[in-house]
Amino acid sequence: MAYTLQQLSDLEEIKQLKSRYCRATDLCDVPMLRSIFTPDVKVSYRGGAYTATADGLEQMLDFLLNAHHSDMITMHQAHLPDIEFISADRARGTWYCEDFHIARDRGQITMGCLIYKDEYVRSDGRWLICATEYDRVWEAFEPLRAGITITAHALARAGLKPADRRDIGHLLKWNAQRPAA
Amino acid sequence: MAYTLQQLSDLEEIKQLKSRYCRATDLCDVPMLRSIFTPDVKVSYRGGAYTATADGLEQMLDFLLNAHHSDMITMHQAHLPDIEFISADRARGTWYCEDFHIARDRGQITMGCLIYKDEYVRSDGRWLICATEYDRVWEAFEPLRAGITITAHALARAGLKPADRRDIGHLLKWNAQRPAA
Amino acid sequence: MAYTLQQLSDLEEIKQLKSRYCRATDLCDVPMLRSIFTPDVKVSYRGGAYTATADGLEQMLDFLLNAHHSDMITMHQAHLPDIEFISADRARGTWYCEDFHIARDRGQITMGCLIYKDEYVRSDGRWLICATEYDRVWEAFEPLRAGITITAHALARAGLKPADRRDIGHLLKWNAQRPAA
Repeated sequence: MAYTLQQLSDLEEIKQLKSRYCRATDLCDVPMLRSIFTPDVKVSYRGGAYTATADGLEQMLDFLLNAHHSDMITMHQAHLPDIEFISADRARGTWYCEDFHIARDRGQITMGCLIYKDEYVRSDGRWLICATEYDRVWEAFEPLRAGITITAHALARAGLKPADRRDIGHLLKWNAQRPAA
Repeated sequence: MAYTLQQLSDLEEIKQLKSRYCRATDLCDVPMLRSIFTPDVKVSYRGGAYTATADGLEQMLDFLLNAHHSDMITMHQAHLPDIEFISADRARGTWYCEDFHIARDRGQITMGCLIYKDEYVRSDGRWLICATEYDRVWEAFEPLRAGITITAHALARAGLKPADRRDIGHLLKWNAQRPAA
Repeated sequence: MAYTLQQLSDLEEIKQLKSRYCRATDLCDVPMLRSIFTPDVKVSYRGGAYTATADGLEQMLDFLLNAHHSDMITMHQAHLPDIEFISADRARGTWYCEDFHIARDRGQITMGCLIYKDEYVRSDGRWLICATEYDRVWEAFEPLRAGITITAHALARAGLKPADRRDIGHLLKWNAQRPAA
């Protein structure tokens, strides 16, 4: 039942893949984001006040870049990987993620944590995410506290500026739970 | 001094075990919690405003399920494992954990971080936690801020409801440092 | 392209090294800090409101011990390692870190996250950090909220007391972005 050397090497590569997903999202690193998913990636994120879905890489990029734009401060850190192999070239992974967001334009903080369930496939020798979903452990909103001063903000430079953003209402749907800004 | 293939495989399994401990606690996944500990697990958690102890699996479940009940929002994320083998079937692990709690019934937030010292044993081919303790790096309490809106809360559904909770005053002892709610 | 057994073992040791860096910093464990870096370690931390530099182990210790002293509550948790080997005895690593600080003397919270870029070298059979730098993903300051009660604080005991602190203005430089306390 022990892992083989090949599997342990694969686990390391899959963990690096998730590392890049988190960093690339919070830094708006488009080339890195493009290197992470299969062309037909399936996405279903079930938040408390929203759901997000994407079908294919271009929709996923649309979602990620427009949800985490230049007025957003975001932190996605996936922890505690629990990965199993389905076959030599396919695996499933569970991660326990903490996330934190400040919507500067809305003056609103979102915080919480969630469980990712991913599926990975090896394609041309490289592991990619072919499906990903999450459910919330908990989620909370709070008005941006008046005393907070932002002194660094990478997405302000790298993220999509207002003129370049696209409507993603077909991908990111808010529900009645969303607090007013 | 390098790790063997068997040891690297064991390290991966031990890390998965801790992943399940964190997720199962915050989601009140009782079958998963039952799969993590030896029957005679020894527990000693030394917080700032409390101590928790348990002797054996049933006491540990009593503690976990009644401390993290349906009015609690909790996040336990253990990071940065530093694990050493004592023998082929026994290991010790240090983890640096961040935790965050909202006691909805008390209107109180607890936040901080802590160092877990675990001991693991392989039993019938599966790694289990046979002893676990922690000391705080720091701990802070804060009244639940009025502006916070909870929009997802898994323990509200899965956690023990008031009528089902048991007194755990023999396991979880609060001290004079505990701020009033 | 798969990792060798030796490399997987080395990756585990490098991850333990970073674990010790985080814990030793937040606990002021001086012997552990001394065991982590090469004598000629190069350090460049680029925050939003400050920069920190150190040239060599003694400067690094001066920086770490005097920046994280007995009036500071600190949490440094490096996550999501993405490590590549340059040679058999040299590697580069990227980590995505969350940090949180309360300066009790200033009544000020700092929070945020950052990307570490480290370089590691094997020396006398042990991996050490020979260079480390970071850039901020984001950083925020906030006045310490009045309702917060500290109930555990390891650095209050272990950290440098006021009489023992040294001026590190040559290592830690604040800029105009730093909010007044």
